[in-house]
Amino acid sequence: MERLYTLVWQDEKGAFPIGYMPQAVYDALIATPVTVRGEMDFDRATRSIKLFHKASSEPERTALAAKLVSHWREQQAFKILKGWRNEPWPVYGRNGEILFKMERVAVGLFGMARYGVHMHVFLMREDDTSKYPFRIWVSKRSPTKSNYPGMLDNSVAGGLAEETPLEGMIREADEEGSLPEDLMRSRVKCVSTVSYVYITDPRSGGESGLIYPELQWVYDLELPADGSVVPTPKDGEVENFKLHTVEDIQAQMAQGLWKPNCAVIMLDFLIRHGILTPENEPHYDEIQRRIHRRLPFPGPRYEASQIGA
Amino acid sequence: MERLYTLVWQDEKGAFPIGYMPQAVYDALIATPVTVRGEMDFDRATRSIKLFHKASSEPERTALAAKLVSHWREQQAFKILKGWRNEPWPVYGRNGEILFKMERVAVGLFGMARYGVHMHVFLMREDDTSKYPFRIWVSKRSPTKSNYPGMLDNSVAGGLAEETPLEGMIREADEEGSLPEDLMRSRVKCVSTVSYVYITDPRSGGESGLIYPELQWVYDLELPADGSVVPTPKDGEVENFKLHTVEDIQAQMAQGLWKPNCAVIMLDFLIRHGILTPENEPHYDEIQRRIHRRLPFPGPRYEASQIGA
Repeated sequence: MERLYTLVWQDEKGAFPIGYMPQAVYDALIATPVTVRGEMDFDRATRSIKLFHKASSEPERTALAAKLVSHWREQQAFKILKGWRNEPWPVYGRNGEILFKMERVAVGLFGMARYGVHMHVFLMREDDTSKYPFRIWVSKRSPTKSNYPGMLDNSVAGGLAEETPLEGMIREADEEGSLPEDLMRSRVKCVSTVSYVYITDPRSGGESGLIYPELQWVYDLELPADGSVVPTPKDGEVENFKLHTVEDIQAQMAQGLWKPNCAVIMLDFLIRHGILTPENEPHYDEIQRRIHRRLPFPGPRYEASQIGA
Repeated sequence: MERLYTLVWQDEKGAFPIGYMPQAVYDALIATPVTVRGEMDFDRATRSIKLFHKASSEPERTALAAKLVSHWREQQAFKILKGWRNEPWPVYGRNGEILFKMERVAVGLFGMARYGVHMHVFLMREDDTSKYPFRIWVSKRSPTKSNYPGMLDNSVAGGLAEETPLEGMIREADEEGSLPEDLMRSRVKCVSTVSYVYITDPRSGGESGLIYPELQWVYDLELPADGSVVPTPKDGEVENFKLHTVEDIQAQMAQGLWKPNCAVIMLDFLIRHGILTPENEPHYDEIQRRIHRRLPFPGPRYEASQIGA
């Protein structure tokens, strides 16, 4: 792979990385007028870049970031910006503070960390169709989505803006699956985190070679066994939900039908529920290590006080 | 902390670390006659040491290792060797092969990785004594154990010799808790791995400052809710088993009554079952990262063929 450029931030304790950029993004920065992107410091020895740092407050830095990426959008500098969502995502400093916000699809250009939630919705049913009692709701991404259209996905998933994981999960469960808040509050459990770094390929619908460091808080939602609750698409991001056995899902994954990072989070489900084991999966320990990567960036911090707990 | 020495192994692809030693162990090596420890290569620049490498087969290297650590035991060179167990533990190379074996308590002197299994045995009961339905069997370590005597521990735990995690778990469940093999095979689930590095303190009963890199395969065993199965001490390593609520365990951990690495594995249980959450535990993400450390050494590999799966 080509060498990367590091986006760094400087605080009172020193400089630290907040993202990794491929050559094309560095080239675009160089080609952008300083009146648009603001001042940029480049350290040739470490290939590190400082951006937005001359502005002294978060709103000013967010405005600078918006000016830069909106310019690139107008210039059609990057294909990925066609999927513009109008959702500003936070970028964090070392004290959990927000340094600035940036349109979510543009965050990927700078290789900054993305935070989200994934939920496995399932019910327990013992019958001859599977070795395992789990029947899992698999969602199919809308064919009109800008990234990974038509691929299979976990029951409900989404990125976090300025909200706690639980609040984000409840919001997404409603928006994507029409799952009621009271059901969520009484039954959903945060059971894991999965963290990894992936590099985009053409299925992303945008540039290949972008760095996506992600941390997902993972939830299990066991529905009543009688099938009285069924997730239903609402906001158009999901084409349909289908109830699958573990064997169905393993076959789908082997066929490459799953969005890759979602398959990774499904592996965590299969591990937590004793389906993948050290004895039946030769790469068990390697999978465990790789789905719990230490992301080299600061992230959000949640306090009990934020949610009135 | 003082600087460490690295024990390295050389294979056809180069040298790699297999352990980290404090100064006292290096000093003891230097003071040991070459006729006892065999040839030792020391690279001053990298503070790295090669041992047992002149022997060309695993049994010969194991014999050399035994000669060295038995000598230290006779000389009373290290307090930790008073806990001698007569259990040779394997040390692995990069292809999953055993380089040599060494008495388990001596493995700690060289800071080599230790592999084990921990099991949470619990039943589900809803009543007014706890917010959570889990009633968990907590074991109290025998007051005569050489390390961490009298401290609280997970239901069943033990180190792995040359056996797969499941086989080791079944063996320990019988030896420590009198839990029958058929119950284990029908109900136990491997649900997680926890990996970490800790440094010994006086509670270890041996030297302080030893490096313990460990990987534990973690099992959940849900017992019938009627309480018809009860773990019972058998081999003398456990003084008693008591059934505790989550709140009991949290209070015990806060009081420092738990063996520290066992408390870490209990945190993984509390996370997997949705009791510790990003909203109620400010260090949630940090805990998740630290209990899934990438150990910097090669380890065992298990294949389905080993267990006839």
